[in-house]
Amino acid sequence: MTEPLVVFTPSGKRGRVAPGTTVLDAARQLGVDLDSVCGGRGVCSRCQVEPAFGQFAKHGIVAREEALSPWNEVEARHDRTRGMVPGRRLGCQAQIVGDMVIDVPADSQVHRQVIRKDAAIRAITMDPAVRLAMIEVAQPDMQDPSGDWERTAAALSQQWGIEGVEIGLDLLAKLGGALRSGDWHVTLALHQGRAGHPVRVVGVWPGIFTGPVYGLAVDIGSTTLASHLCDLSSGDVVASSGVMNPQIRFGEDLMSRVSYAMMNPGGAAEMTAAVRSALDELARGVATDGGIDPALIVDAVLVGNPVMHHLLLGLDPSELGQAPFALTRAGGLDLGAAELGLTAVSPAARAYVLPCIAGHVGADSAAVALAEEPDKSDALTLVVDVGTNAEVLLGNRERVLACSSPTGPAFEGAQISAGQRAAPGAVERVRIDPVTKEPRFRVIGCDLWSNEPGFAEAIAGVGITGICGSGIIEAVAELRMAGIVDGSGLIGSAEQTGTDRCFAHGRTNAWLLHDGTEAGGARIAVTQNDIRAIQLAKAALYAGARLLMDEFGVDRVDRVVLAGAFGAHISPLHAMVLGMIPDVPIEAVTAAGNAAGTGARIALCNRGARREIERLVSHIQKVETAIEPRFQEHFVAANALPHATAPFTQLRQRVGLPDVSYNERAGASPRRRRGIG
Amino acid sequence: MTEPLVVFTPSGKRGRVAPGTTVLDAARQLGVDLDSVCGGRGVCSRCQVEPAFGQFAKHGIVAREEALSPWNEVEARHDRTRGMVPGRRLGCQAQIVGDMVIDVPADSQVHRQVIRKDAAIRAITMDPAVRLAMIEVAQPDMQDPSGDWERTAAALSQQWGIEGVEIGLDLLAKLGGALRSGDWHVTLALHQGRAGHPVRVVGVWPGIFTGPVYGLAVDIGSTTLASHLCDLSSGDVVASSGVMNPQIRFGEDLMSRVSYAMMNPGGAAEMTAAVRSALDELARGVATDGGIDPALIVDAVLVGNPVMHHLLLGLDPSELGQAPFALTRAGGLDLGAAELGLTAVSPAARAYVLPCIAGHVGADSAAVALAEEPDKSDALTLVVDVGTNAEVLLGNRERVLACSSPTGPAFEGAQISAGQRAAPGAVERVRIDPVTKEPRFRVIGCDLWSNEPGFAEAIAGVGITGICGSGIIEAVAELRMAGIVDGSGLIGSAEQTGTDRCFAHGRTNAWLLHDGTEAGGARIAVTQNDIRAIQLAKAALYAGARLLMDEFGVDRVDRVVLAGAFGAHISPLHAMVLGMIPDVPIEAVTAAGNAAGTGARIALCNRGARREIERLVSHIQKVETAIEPRFQEHFVAANALPHATAPFTQLRQRVGLPDVSYNERAGASPRRRRGIG
Repeated sequence: MTEPLVVFTPSGKRGRVAPGTTVLDAARQLGVDLDSVCGGRGVCSRCQVEPAFGQFAKHGIVAREEALSPWNEVEARHDRTRGMVPGRRLGCQAQIVGDMVIDVPADSQVHRQVIRKDAAIRAITMDPAVRLAMIEVAQPDMQDPSGDWERTAAALSQQWGIEGVEIGLDLLAKLGGALRSGDWHVTLALHQGRAGHPVRVVGVWPGIFTGPVYGLAVDIGSTTLASHLCDLSSGDVVASSGVMNPQIRFGEDLMSRVSYAMMNPGGAAEMTAAVRSALDELARGVATDGGIDPALIVDAVLVGNPVMHHLLLGLDPSELGQAPFALTRAGGLDLGAAELGLTAVSPAARAYVLPCIAGHVGADSAAVALAEEPDKSDALTLVVDVGTNAEVLLGNRERVLACSSPTGPAFEGAQISAGQRAAPGAVERVRIDPVTKEPRFRVIGCDLWSNEPGFAEAIAGVGITGICGSGIIEAVAELRMAGIVDGSGLIGSAEQTGTDRCFAHGRTNAWLLHDGTEAGGARIAVTQNDIRAIQLAKAALYAGARLLMDEFGVDRVDRVVLAGAFGAHISPLHAMVLGMIPDVPIEAVTAAGNAAGTGARIALCNRGARREIERLVSHIQKVETAIEPRFQEHFVAANALPHATAPFTQLRQRVGLPDVSYNERAGASPRRRRGIG
Repeated sequence: MTEPLVVFTPSGKRGRVAPGTTVLDAARQLGVDLDSVCGGRGVCSRCQVEPAFGQFAKHGIVAREEALSPWNEVEARHDRTRGMVPGRRLGCQAQIVGDMVIDVPADSQVHRQVIRKDAAIRAITMDPAVRLAMIEVAQPDMQDPSGDWERTAAALSQQWGIEGVEIGLDLLAKLGGALRSGDWHVTLALHQGRAGHPVRVVGVWPGIFTGPVYGLAVDIGSTTLASHLCDLSSGDVVASSGVMNPQIRFGEDLMSRVSYAMMNPGGAAEMTAAVRSALDELARGVATDGGIDPALIVDAVLVGNPVMHHLLLGLDPSELGQAPFALTRAGGLDLGAAELGLTAVSPAARAYVLPCIAGHVGADSAAVALAEEPDKSDALTLVVDVGTNAEVLLGNRERVLACSSPTGPAFEGAQISAGQRAAPGAVERVRIDPVTKEPRFRVIGCDLWSNEPGFAEAIAGVGITGICGSGIIEAVAELRMAGIVDGSGLIGSAEQTGTDRCFAHGRTNAWLLHDGTEAGGARIAVTQNDIRAIQLAKAALYAGARLLMDEFGVDRVDRVVLAGAFGAHISPLHAMVLGMIPDVPIEAVTAAGNAAGTGARIALCNRGARREIERLVSHIQKVETAIEPRFQEHFVAANALPHATAPFTQLRQRVGLPDVSYNERAGASPRRRRGIG
């Protein structure tokens, strides 16, 4: 008798199996991805399949109803107690007796594809480090004494082929009780870290437990710790949450925290304790938000810039504040979550910290690279992660370069006369009519533009308190486009520019955006110093990108990705008008949102991604801006507004204005800024 | 030109090397055991050798002075600063240019043999899990950024061939500072656990550090935690120290502690916390005794009976109190010392816990097996570790059997009318003159026998408070030999025995050893119940040994080892008279002292011994006395005194008495004890 032919969809894998083989066993024999926690005992219901009947010319199969064994008692019981989708069978119960076509629905696949909402074109293939496995363990025998754990390990070997498993004392203490209350059946959560490293038990449940278990993806930022809580079987983000980084009390920016560590004995340890306690609070909070027991969190992936990375790990960051900017530990790191002070999660939970790329380019940049994949792109891609420092990646399939540009905090609203953090009350968008030269703006916490009806009422509860990073960038770009600021960055006088909003401010001019002082509110103006600060920052960013382009041997890139929460708020058009980024067609500029958080989530859901980013990081060519003379040259050259003329010209033309500003029109020679750097 | 021939003694290894090869390199090439911490940089002075000059007919070598390069500046500096034994050279400096004979003195060998004082015929080969290695680490380079740790790992690979090393966050935090203050030289203590497992850094020192580092060998007893502090390079025991097991407040014996765990939620955890805190205190204390910094303790080996083993590990021992006596964890265990609550030692210190043999035969018995090596003996060896339970091992090269006998606490002085722990004031030795029937005795804390001049004065400061285990055993054996107790264990009356020390006590007789009541002291008598308690205990012990002999298919053994602190105090002769152990020539009975502690020390000094005992334990045939009907038969049959007649007869003959007691002489039939079991 010919063995039945079976074709699995959507994989298309096919082969002949012995008559009476269960669908689950057939899937295993043919290498088909079909989930199972109970190992085929009919208790977990993870192996549900949809048999298809009829003629399948494509597969050369006529599948008859009788080609599968009849619905059995196990399936009937499962349908009664938990319900089954009509047309489905349990793969471990249904036996193949004739030619068959069997579909494995997405929810029965271990390595299912998860569409990333933040980048719809790409998907994450689920392959988390933690899986669940139920086993039946031999009972103790006085004649042949061995430990509960030894019999459990033997069962893992026999029933799942998993060898050399390790268990910590915490879970070992639970094992005996779980075995006995589960009638010698137990479900283990198993964590496979680096290949060749032992599998570790990270969870123990009596009898059958089908999950889900959860993982945390955390981006440790200087200002905020942001986390995603992910279901490790579906990949779903169950909750996202953030807390302030309490290290802020030791210094607003990275360098002031490094100074604190250098100046105060025990200062680094204080900052470590602060960030770890915030991380623990975050884990507890996101579990509450997701409505889950935090003890079900069994894995975590963490990223952060080099200083945050070192402080999280309890390493003194002092060396990162001075040349040669030496990291204590660069490589990816497998840890117990408890070693990072995570007490909210399972005590056996693991943690993975992504590698740092260089002393100024951290694990957060590695995560950005993992999320944005410049190394898998045919198009030469520039990825810019804007913050206090801007980390810049440039590359394609051939190679990837990285550097960090010292932009300073102006892009975050610091060192700006009316600047403030992005918080309710901050002006975040600015538009200036190039003809009337009148501005309108939007404020965080209010959906209306300032010139729209109802704005006054809507803003009453929020207030207008200052201008944040994206607001000042748009203001400067709009001022330039409206001809109020010239190519060297100088603000013209009211006479020169034809708007009363320009006023004398010391030996230079300033421009008034909003005056709320009559009502006791803020007065928001853009001063000449503000524009200088933005010029310095954008010149640094541009010079970093340009330096990488030099190293790559190109003078243009194919696309630009603006990463980071800040990147999500910058208008690509204004960024290009300012000359923050090299000229590309405007449609080739995209915002990637919190790409570092996304990268952490990818590494959480796919353990292969951890090795992939380690390989990429080791191959990335690191460029140190601090010692590159060309960086200084690019920096000085990039000071002018606009450095990039093409989009500026196009924009001016679009609104019917000549490509000149007050100064050019008046014939005055643009001043040159000297001595920067 | 012929390459020089070099012969190393005492190994006898020989071979030709390129002219100019250093002695250290030659030793490495020829596989000769020559120590080095600095890897040949001339700073550690561990590689000292003694070149021999002259004619060596045996080796076929004529060694001339000029066959070795002249004394160099490194050696001269070392001689000035630290002194060198005349005639020695630094192996890393002296170059071989002609035929040579070179002796490696014992203190320059890594794997030196250490004579065990407790068993002079055997030696420990030093091969501790921890070794020291100095490396020179590349300085950080901005052009090619990598972490301090990554450069350190690369240096370990290049300079010592050690790959895949892991370091915990604690020591990682120290690494950067050590590298910089040691001018990019650092000495690491490296721990190699199980083969295939990663090497771990357990110590970091700037520059060169030649040690020593230390290890702790601890026997966790129900009553006492006993430790040896060992120098891990020499194997010397630097200090030995013990503390009471504070678990005693939860129950005197093992079963009462198991009951406490079963009856009280959280009871096991309380006992775990108690023993861990005592262990930590012990580590601190023994370091103080040894005059060393406890942070230099980098490894530990722990043994204990199954209940102590489980409580130390934080595992509930309840299952050990009832059939089938299931262990939660049986196998040998590699841990961080911190996981056992050891805070006194280096935070990166490791710990190894020996395997348990069965639910009643613990890691302490495994350590006894490692120390006494029945598996390496041609003679069939019976090893008895006497305590509340007696663990019995029987075996030779062919195979080894093990069981546990429930002797109860009588051997420790409990359940004895005048019984007490072995402590100052306790009678520990008893002799009865077979002719006069008058006793003499010795008391712990006093060096004189009770009939020696000056005893009264000497004992005044100590007092006579009771009788301990060894005292009651000797008393019963002596009573039997003096004919005051008959073969069934009955004490005769004053009339029957001819001594006034016998007196009526309820429906039976008792025998007075000492009456101090007039001076307000204790009255110490041996009652019929005391003798019954000893009979039960010795019958259980004998039955266990006998059961193993049955399983082995023999009716005699070649030698007997009495292990345990108690074993060290029992007189082998009295043990045999009592019938505690099978008949063997008296000279074939030896006391092994704290064999469990010795076994722990062996596993500390030689990591191969850890794998060896795991192999042996897995091969030991476990016999469960609780379910063996023959155990009951042997137990009942072993009740009489003496069970073993041969030594009794010899002894009686030696003092010129017939081999009978009052009862046999009087013709009365010995009573039989019924219903035991």
